[in-house]
Amino acid sequence: MRDFLPADKARRERVLAVIRERYRAHGFDEIETPVVEDYDRLHAGIGGDNEKLAFNVLKRGLDADAIRAAADDPARLSDLGLRYDLTVPLARFYATHRAELPTVFRSIQIAPVWRAERPQKGRYRQFVQCDIDIIGDATGRAEAELVVASLDTLDALGLDGGTIRINDRRALDWMLEVFGFAPDERAGVLITIDKLDKIGVDGVVAELSERGATPEAVAAFRAFLHRPQTLEYRPYGEGQIRKALPEGAPDDVVTGLVAIGDAVAAARAANAVTDPGGIPLVFDPFLVRGMGYYTGTIFELAHPSVDYSLGGGGRYDGMIGRFLGQDVPAVGFSIGFERIVDLVGAEADAGASAVVLVHDRDMPVAELVTLKAALVAGGSRVRLERRPKNLKALLERAAADGYTSFATIAAGASRDELELKSLS
Amino acid sequence: MRDFLPADKARRERVLAVIRERYRAHGFDEIETPVVEDYDRLHAGIGGDNEKLAFNVLKRGLDADAIRAAADDPARLSDLGLRYDLTVPLARFYATHRAELPTVFRSIQIAPVWRAERPQKGRYRQFVQCDIDIIGDATGRAEAELVVASLDTLDALGLDGGTIRINDRRALDWMLEVFGFAPDERAGVLITIDKLDKIGVDGVVAELSERGATPEAVAAFRAFLHRPQTLEYRPYGEGQIRKALPEGAPDDVVTGLVAIGDAVAAARAANAVTDPGGIPLVFDPFLVRGMGYYTGTIFELAHPSVDYSLGGGGRYDGMIGRFLGQDVPAVGFSIGFERIVDLVGAEADAGASAVVLVHDRDMPVAELVTLKAALVAGGSRVRLERRPKNLKALLERAAADGYTSFATIAAGASRDELELKSLS
Repeated sequence: MRDFLPADKARRERVLAVIRERYRAHGFDEIETPVVEDYDRLHAGIGGDNEKLAFNVLKRGLDADAIRAAADDPARLSDLGLRYDLTVPLARFYATHRAELPTVFRSIQIAPVWRAERPQKGRYRQFVQCDIDIIGDATGRAEAELVVASLDTLDALGLDGGTIRINDRRALDWMLEVFGFAPDERAGVLITIDKLDKIGVDGVVAELSERGATPEAVAAFRAFLHRPQTLEYRPYGEGQIRKALPEGAPDDVVTGLVAIGDAVAAARAANAVTDPGGIPLVFDPFLVRGMGYYTGTIFELAHPSVDYSLGGGGRYDGMIGRFLGQDVPAVGFSIGFERIVDLVGAEADAGASAVVLVHDRDMPVAELVTLKAALVAGGSRVRLERRPKNLKALLERAAADGYTSFATIAAGASRDELELKSLS
Repeated sequence: MRDFLPADKARRERVLAVIRERYRAHGFDEIETPVVEDYDRLHAGIGGDNEKLAFNVLKRGLDADAIRAAADDPARLSDLGLRYDLTVPLARFYATHRAELPTVFRSIQIAPVWRAERPQKGRYRQFVQCDIDIIGDATGRAEAELVVASLDTLDALGLDGGTIRINDRRALDWMLEVFGFAPDERAGVLITIDKLDKIGVDGVVAELSERGATPEAVAAFRAFLHRPQTLEYRPYGEGQIRKALPEGAPDDVVTGLVAIGDAVAAARAANAVTDPGGIPLVFDPFLVRGMGYYTGTIFELAHPSVDYSLGGGGRYDGMIGRFLGQDVPAVGFSIGFERIVDLVGAEADAGASAVVLVHDRDMPVAELVTLKAALVAGGSRVRLERRPKNLKALLERAAADGYTSFATIAAGASRDELELKSLS
């Protein structure tokens, strides 16, 4: 977990304000839930591997007997835990407040989550997620709105050129069936396929054999992966999607993927955005996404400046039902804020006037704060500094902190006579 | 702990943006620390009664033996805890990062804290605090800047007319000495005096006797409290401050309080703010503030619309030294965000265009999201809705959510032909 110093914090807040504003423009509404949720809800199997990474909160008021009794069942020590994602809280929120929300609810959640990850570069134990979700819409309109809003937000941050890899869990399931994998093998096969980028075709094939897949299934899979056209996913369109799948792919899945692509392309064109390389979608038949709850479309956000994903999401039509006792379609997209913020430039607020007033030690406080108040009322940001031995160092520091001009003042100074000098 | 629905969350974010912007204008810089701190630091005696209200995080990887061994020492079950205030984290932050910060560091912290309070109206277990602190300035310039920035922020939120009650812990200490309270009685006496508003003079006198104060001390205290002028604290100035204290009050304390008042009055006048009733400070010789770490000036923010405090703070010159091993002066002011936000009007963003597009079920998704994208690019906020059976209810709901106009559209609709109707 990290402290954020002023320059970093200011940049984070600037980026968050842009994300918030763009998502709101696209018709999403921000909500907030407490950082802790009930222990049982966090450990109900929905969170996948993240459940094991939860920070749990010690139950209050435990006496010695209760602690001893929990030795063989440590779950009894906790009744709350810090959330490890924003999806479990959203499902709980929606189940609680459904009557107060629009039929199709488009939510924004911008908030920290916690995971007890092993410390390593680029992984944090507290990090901010920016999620948008559409609950109550089973059609591709939802996917198209999520994708368009996300790309628009990236553009607004100066990160244009993003592309979204897209797939459908139903296409994956069907493909594995075609290759001859038995239903109970498929979850394991997906975990292996998810490593394709890292371990390559041979690695995947070897691991599938180890997992006990039949030689016929593995051979079918390997033959398909080695088709020359399989990994050339562009351009995006029905022909290309069918070519990237084994023959006979289910019509409804292909049609759905094509419709999302058409909608995104049309919206981007209307927005006068010309995506480099055409439509900013790439069909990837081996995109898996880790979470077990996805039921349809899945996506992952890529950007040419980095070789890791900047976010992703998918459709999870079954999960809200677990809290509500009634099926509700849902699809979400999450931006990895910590990764985005590192890519955004550190430039200060353009055009803002920020003034350092350097004053003598004996200048009366009333005069000082009066001058400051007058400049603040005029729209400036103002920092007061006593004149130090090393004025140069002080001014350099202020310039680094985003201040643009300074004036040295003494008792009797008035605002009208203030001589501002540039700090740059 | 509470969920925030869209309208509440939007208002919270609007209020936070104003607070952030005003404090920044006054030369404060925002920082952020992790929500958890080390258990030992949270329970080092600095947090006062709040330490007992901390939510502690269960240590990870405890085995059955470790849990049994902790039965008689539950502190061994935790290595982290959720922060219960922003002052302990600030002291730790400053000690860690001092070399990277300006000599006089003006910090903003806007963040949630957690306390295991008994649920009751207006008390929450997770709530946001807005703190500003000035570290490294031992002069009244710091108090004046804090007070002026806080009042300006209240004004910007439409809550003008706030007043700040002010006192100095050194005046309190001296007064208790004059009344004859022994040094080891004084902490208890302060706790009793702090209840003056609630239990009145007779209640305070009775409780002081119960606490074992000498009859002479109690009599001196009662006689002083019954002086007719004591509780008429206005106007603010040296004469009034001296009149509100026993005779012979220490000069440096009185001079300091007067200088802060002069500075605040001058700055407010320069800012063209006419405070109702003159200078927005009230000297209150019985203002105590609960925390034990205050060493000098203390304040409390009042507003005519409510009978509870909206915030407060004070000087705590000793505390940073506990983390740094070197004394550093510090003074802070905390706004009770949850109380402020309830007082601020719920009006939506003025002048923003927000459009509902009501479409037929069979309208192609590509056309829909294209129209939406064009309106978003033109600066509108846009929500898509399928035409329901009850259009009136849908439009009322949208108006309540802040939407200002709507259009019904069908396949082939173009942006140029869009007929927007007002929702009001």
